[in-house]
Amino acid sequence: MHSFHELLEQFELFFSKHKFPDSPATLYEPCSYLLHMGGKRVRPVLCLMGHELFTPLNDNSWNTATAVELFHNFTLMHDDIMDNAPLRRGVTTVHEKYNLATGILSGDVMSIYAYQHLNKVDTSYIHAVMALFNQTAIQICEGQQLDMDFEKRDIVSLEEYLEMIRLKTSVLLGTSIKLGAMLGGATEGCSEILSQFGNSLGMAFQLRDDYLDTFGDTNKTGKQIGGDILANKKTFLLAKAFEIVDVNQKIVLQELLKRNDQEKIQDIIAFFNSIQLKNYIEEEIENYSKKAYFFLEKTPVISSRKKNLLEVTDMLLHREK
Amino acid sequence: MHSFHELLEQFELFFSKHKFPDSPATLYEPCSYLLHMGGKRVRPVLCLMGHELFTPLNDNSWNTATAVELFHNFTLMHDDIMDNAPLRRGVTTVHEKYNLATGILSGDVMSIYAYQHLNKVDTSYIHAVMALFNQTAIQICEGQQLDMDFEKRDIVSLEEYLEMIRLKTSVLLGTSIKLGAMLGGATEGCSEILSQFGNSLGMAFQLRDDYLDTFGDTNKTGKQIGGDILANKKTFLLAKAFEIVDVNQKIVLQELLKRNDQEKIQDIIAFFNSIQLKNYIEEEIENYSKKAYFFLEKTPVISSRKKNLLEVTDMLLHREK
Repeated sequence: MHSFHELLEQFELFFSKHKFPDSPATLYEPCSYLLHMGGKRVRPVLCLMGHELFTPLNDNSWNTATAVELFHNFTLMHDDIMDNAPLRRGVTTVHEKYNLATGILSGDVMSIYAYQHLNKVDTSYIHAVMALFNQTAIQICEGQQLDMDFEKRDIVSLEEYLEMIRLKTSVLLGTSIKLGAMLGGATEGCSEILSQFGNSLGMAFQLRDDYLDTFGDTNKTGKQIGGDILANKKTFLLAKAFEIVDVNQKIVLQELLKRNDQEKIQDIIAFFNSIQLKNYIEEEIENYSKKAYFFLEKTPVISSRKKNLLEVTDMLLHREK
Repeated sequence: MHSFHELLEQFELFFSKHKFPDSPATLYEPCSYLLHMGGKRVRPVLCLMGHELFTPLNDNSWNTATAVELFHNFTLMHDDIMDNAPLRRGVTTVHEKYNLATGILSGDVMSIYAYQHLNKVDTSYIHAVMALFNQTAIQICEGQQLDMDFEKRDIVSLEEYLEMIRLKTSVLLGTSIKLGAMLGGATEGCSEILSQFGNSLGMAFQLRDDYLDTFGDTNKTGKQIGGDILANKKTFLLAKAFEIVDVNQKIVLQELLKRNDQEKIQDIIAFFNSIQLKNYIEEEIENYSKKAYFFLEKTPVISSRKKNLLEVTDMLLHREK
């Protein structure tokens, strides 16, 4: 069994062996460009870890991990267009560097390569793997749609926001580890518990993102604080704020959101602090973390085998960037 | 065994049973909107016909036909964005009616539904079906990329143009019938011959499109003549023209292409007529038609079973709209 960092290194090696064709370069070069931007590779490593809980890594898990990472990058390429994002991880996004059509078509072809890898899975698993993968892929699209729909609304309830991030982010973490477990021979019951673990981890992971964007340390995150605030993004903090404020505070908050000046970020953070939002989000992250640990504990595998998954959980939940 | 029109009717019935979820309506309503625009449904019907050559229709062929049609519509939704097309079949395109993000995301989710249908195929066929489907899907993306790359160039050789339409259009016709045949229990050799039949039919089909756009009858096509000319689209006619003109004619043609006035279309058509382009394209269509009939003839199935396929071939090759 391997640690997160060992598996990350091995995955990068396997992943780098996947080469797109040379031609048409206008189609495939942007795919390689995005994949070489890096990323945490959390999803494929979770897939490998789920597999290693039960059996040594094999082609089934490597190919599925690759499919998951390719599919994730396909969604990033298209999301960046939809979100009008000029940068990803500090680097120019595909549609900005090339053009809109490239962002669409290179994304499309990358998603098909994901399915090509998935089709290498042994026949005995292929239907179940494809069914779960497709269901999750559909949920990710639905989550992205809700996210965009929310942009057009003034207020989004906490419940709606949590459902959106569940679909857009957390299900793929749950599915990644579940796919690994299924391919490792885990029972449906056992792999479903691991899926719940991954989902909870995913929720905490996304909420940690919301937290760091407002309360993080620029020196550690490498990003300007308050990006979400500036974009009036619907986050946990905003949804929760509207839930707990009184009528007068609500008017103040709505006025703050309308502003577009230099001090907007610091004034909104001050407002958030005045209603103890930091405590609320920390509590919510704590709740999902506890759920994640609970499901990991509940997984019917001897403790010593779960050590690496426990470590990665700690790492992801306490990350400062 | 059934005629094209009988299978079309049955397919529409089966296809209409496929309902997208109600929510998020912003994601799924555009999918239904595009599917209800209609279309010739040539690909799914070819898939069904390929299957019926060997065995009665069953869930394998219905689901694969559905997957093919969903995938085809996904490519249309994205192509319309890339081509900046305001209309399809006389109706407002998805990204025009809704917005860019909708055109991208609704297309994405439709492609996943295609894979969901494909995953209903029996286990004994799933790997082969997925492999062929993926390979074809990749070729379609490559073809669309070449088409876009050509837009930026002044001259495209005939060979390059034919390769582009092979990838963008004809492989999916070949694959549709091949998938049906494979699922009907045809041998690899036999289904490959049918694939060649479909490819040749596809080439003739696309060249017929080029022909009708310039030499068609508006009353029959329902489209304004010369759309390709107006957009300076690289078509068979333009590629062939550059191949056969002398130095002086080439200068004339290049000047004609630069124009943007009302008479551009009629003047270019007059130029095309002066170099007998109509004969050349008719000859090329005839060549591919002969190939199609040759491969159909070569298919090791008794003649009486091929009657319907022969009819649909005649219909597609001689269509006036």
